[in-house]
Amino acid sequence: MPQSERMQQLAPVLAWIDSHRDAALTHLQQFCRQPSVAAQNWGMEEMAKMVEASLSELGAATQIIATEGYPVVVGQLAGDSARRLAIYNHYDVQPPEPLDAWSFPPFDATIHDGYLYARGVADNKGNLVARLWAARAWREVYGSLPCHVTFLFEGEEEIGSPHLGSFAAANRDLINADACLWETGYRDAEGALGIYAGVKGILYIELRTRGTAYDLHSSNAPLAPNAVWRLIAALNALRDAEGNILIPHFYDDVKAPSERERELLARFPVNVEAYQKSWESAILPGPSGSQTTPTERLLYAPTCNICGIWGGYSGSGSKTVIPAIAGVKIDFRLVPDQDPQKILGHLRRYLTERGFDDVEVIELEGTEYPGQSPIDTPLLEALVRSARTIYGIEPHVQVRTAGTGPMEALSQRYGIPAIGGAGVGHSESRTHAPNENIRVDDYILNIKHVAALLAEFAAM
Amino acid sequence: MPQSERMQQLAPVLAWIDSHRDAALTHLQQFCRQPSVAAQNWGMEEMAKMVEASLSELGAATQIIATEGYPVVVGQLAGDSARRLAIYNHYDVQPPEPLDAWSFPPFDATIHDGYLYARGVADNKGNLVARLWAARAWREVYGSLPCHVTFLFEGEEEIGSPHLGSFAAANRDLINADACLWETGYRDAEGALGIYAGVKGILYIELRTRGTAYDLHSSNAPLAPNAVWRLIAALNALRDAEGNILIPHFYDDVKAPSERERELLARFPVNVEAYQKSWESAILPGPSGSQTTPTERLLYAPTCNICGIWGGYSGSGSKTVIPAIAGVKIDFRLVPDQDPQKILGHLRRYLTERGFDDVEVIELEGTEYPGQSPIDTPLLEALVRSARTIYGIEPHVQVRTAGTGPMEALSQRYGIPAIGGAGVGHSESRTHAPNENIRVDDYILNIKHVAALLAEFAAM
Repeated sequence: MPQSERMQQLAPVLAWIDSHRDAALTHLQQFCRQPSVAAQNWGMEEMAKMVEASLSELGAATQIIATEGYPVVVGQLAGDSARRLAIYNHYDVQPPEPLDAWSFPPFDATIHDGYLYARGVADNKGNLVARLWAARAWREVYGSLPCHVTFLFEGEEEIGSPHLGSFAAANRDLINADACLWETGYRDAEGALGIYAGVKGILYIELRTRGTAYDLHSSNAPLAPNAVWRLIAALNALRDAEGNILIPHFYDDVKAPSERERELLARFPVNVEAYQKSWESAILPGPSGSQTTPTERLLYAPTCNICGIWGGYSGSGSKTVIPAIAGVKIDFRLVPDQDPQKILGHLRRYLTERGFDDVEVIELEGTEYPGQSPIDTPLLEALVRSARTIYGIEPHVQVRTAGTGPMEALSQRYGIPAIGGAGVGHSESRTHAPNENIRVDDYILNIKHVAALLAEFAAM
Repeated sequence: MPQSERMQQLAPVLAWIDSHRDAALTHLQQFCRQPSVAAQNWGMEEMAKMVEASLSELGAATQIIATEGYPVVVGQLAGDSARRLAIYNHYDVQPPEPLDAWSFPPFDATIHDGYLYARGVADNKGNLVARLWAARAWREVYGSLPCHVTFLFEGEEEIGSPHLGSFAAANRDLINADACLWETGYRDAEGALGIYAGVKGILYIELRTRGTAYDLHSSNAPLAPNAVWRLIAALNALRDAEGNILIPHFYDDVKAPSERERELLARFPVNVEAYQKSWESAILPGPSGSQTTPTERLLYAPTCNICGIWGGYSGSGSKTVIPAIAGVKIDFRLVPDQDPQKILGHLRRYLTERGFDDVEVIELEGTEYPGQSPIDTPLLEALVRSARTIYGIEPHVQVRTAGTGPMEALSQRYGIPAIGGAGVGHSESRTHAPNENIRVDDYILNIKHVAALLAEFAAM
């Protein structure tokens, strides 16, 4: 089918979406009002049922497939072409804390001034529900989809998809596809979507220190070990003042960008000004002497980030104690070909060698390998073309996003290219943070984008 | 009155105490069951009224004297001699957190296996109530006390006695005395009381850092400043790995022990083994190259102690964020002649000079000057003699305790010697910590000790 015919075919689908804007929005609000915090086991069963019901309503053949954790909800819809597209999303969300930093309650799905505020609305219930509505539009207008679609909706992405790998291994027939549409997408400050063919991996650990058997009166400080000071000593061993990670062999498997990747880096730089304006802070300088651009650091640098630290008294006023225990949560974002298990081994050996064998290292659920698909794959081209059609703005293409996901476990391992970038988010969506939000208009545009994408992909 | 006559006079008082053991214990439990957490404004008014009622019941002329914070409760009892003893205690307690670390609820005053468990029982409701019972015993047996006594019970010791100085300045007639019996006392692992003539000062601050305007998704870590890493950088500037404080001029006014003080240090060393057994950890080594003993470090070394640290996510499981804000609470224990306000100035200048002008320095209520009374003062001798009488174990005398109190503001400034060491605590009393406790027998012994002390002091 030539391009002009595809556009003609698409027009009524887009019109249908416009005329069902309110219903699609209400549906998303319903999803956002159901808490589904995997880390806190909050509302997960109800959410899985809601997802399954929505897939059934769409006419999909549905399955709720149990795992050792939360189930994967699968929906299959037949299409007019032989092309098979898997669509990956997750129905779990990050914890909403700190609650008092939200302007609107995190599970109220408040619409204010053209924005919808809710935990998970950008990451990634907005995407999940938009994709259902894109499929629905095709079915309502034409009775079927341009290609076969399998929705793969897991419930553990925000805790690191610990069981998606075994689900994929046990359900090869379900995950099999010509390509997989990945979960998220964000528009930058100029409105351009970022298209990506890979994700970083992650190793999430806790370090815990113990000083004395119980909190002591702080008058004992000249003699008594303090768990917090000890924790800080261990943290100092991990990273230098410029952010370089000091664990031996940490960088061994990190690769520099290829020529082609350097071209993309130069062509689609991140908007540093927009970040700085949104964050109300300057971005970090790179390590001194390094020539890397902010875009390269963002996408190619592995990290050692403190997600949280605690120890002793943090209430109002003063309490004079020597904390007996302290802890820190750290995520290492890893790039190809860093192996999280090897990194964990390096970390443990290093702490022991440096005399920190008293520091407990706990691996939390959520370890993920970096995932990388080829850039030259039809789904990427389909995403770019459909983005041009719907947004009229050239999308930005990079080899990967700075985020993480189970791309390796669900797709790369089986030779299925996975591409992301179609999504409802924008550069100030505040994912994982208070006041997570999307623009309502972006939600509708994303439904249209995915609808267009299905036709493009089917035609390839 | 010669010593033998004093002993004869004392015997019925001690017998009366033994026969009122249960009532005295019940009275203490009543005090412990009333929360009085100054830092959290919890139960303070009720507690002040309970203190005043107990003083009235004792026959004292009472006053509840308002301050800008919690009131000072004063009780005056006339005595048979011209000697005037002030008795200083506080009716507030530390916050009970962390609650789940208590074996018995902190305000239940549970008696178990000869121990009484409660927040504040050792620090220092046990002392306060015991002193009331010592006075009561004299009045019940002889109708009056051996000397004039003025009880000065404040409600803000655990938040640094911010208003006791202005109370003292405005009530010179009330605080005036030949000497002041200080608040606490603890028996070491061998049962010996520690007598002290001074207290350390304290400067209590919070440092706060801010990275971005809100918590970010941690995929931004290569570019976004992290408030916790920033806080750790600032903390590294304060102290080296051996615990030496790096603030310029911090040690300028610190004095080495005198000859006489060195004798006391050598004669009454702290029991390192007992500490290590109780704490289940080795004590800290001194700075490398230093020849100081643990006793000298404990009593003569100023400290920079982290009381609590927080930032980001500390809940269950994982959350991948870059914390926007972080904070730490620090107490500096200061020795003569360190001036907390000068130290605070040094700290602020130093942080600015080191490039940490983004780090907010907040002085919390509780700043106190070091207090030091002369060792050669009658009250100290009276404490030692009466301790020998009641405990049969030679008490340990040191120039000061490692703890802090408003000795300078209430006594030293007006030339009134203040001596501490009569108390209900023991080396594992866990003051400021979960499972704070005293031995019930030590409570009764302390009542007797104070009763004996009154006679000794009156005779000097």
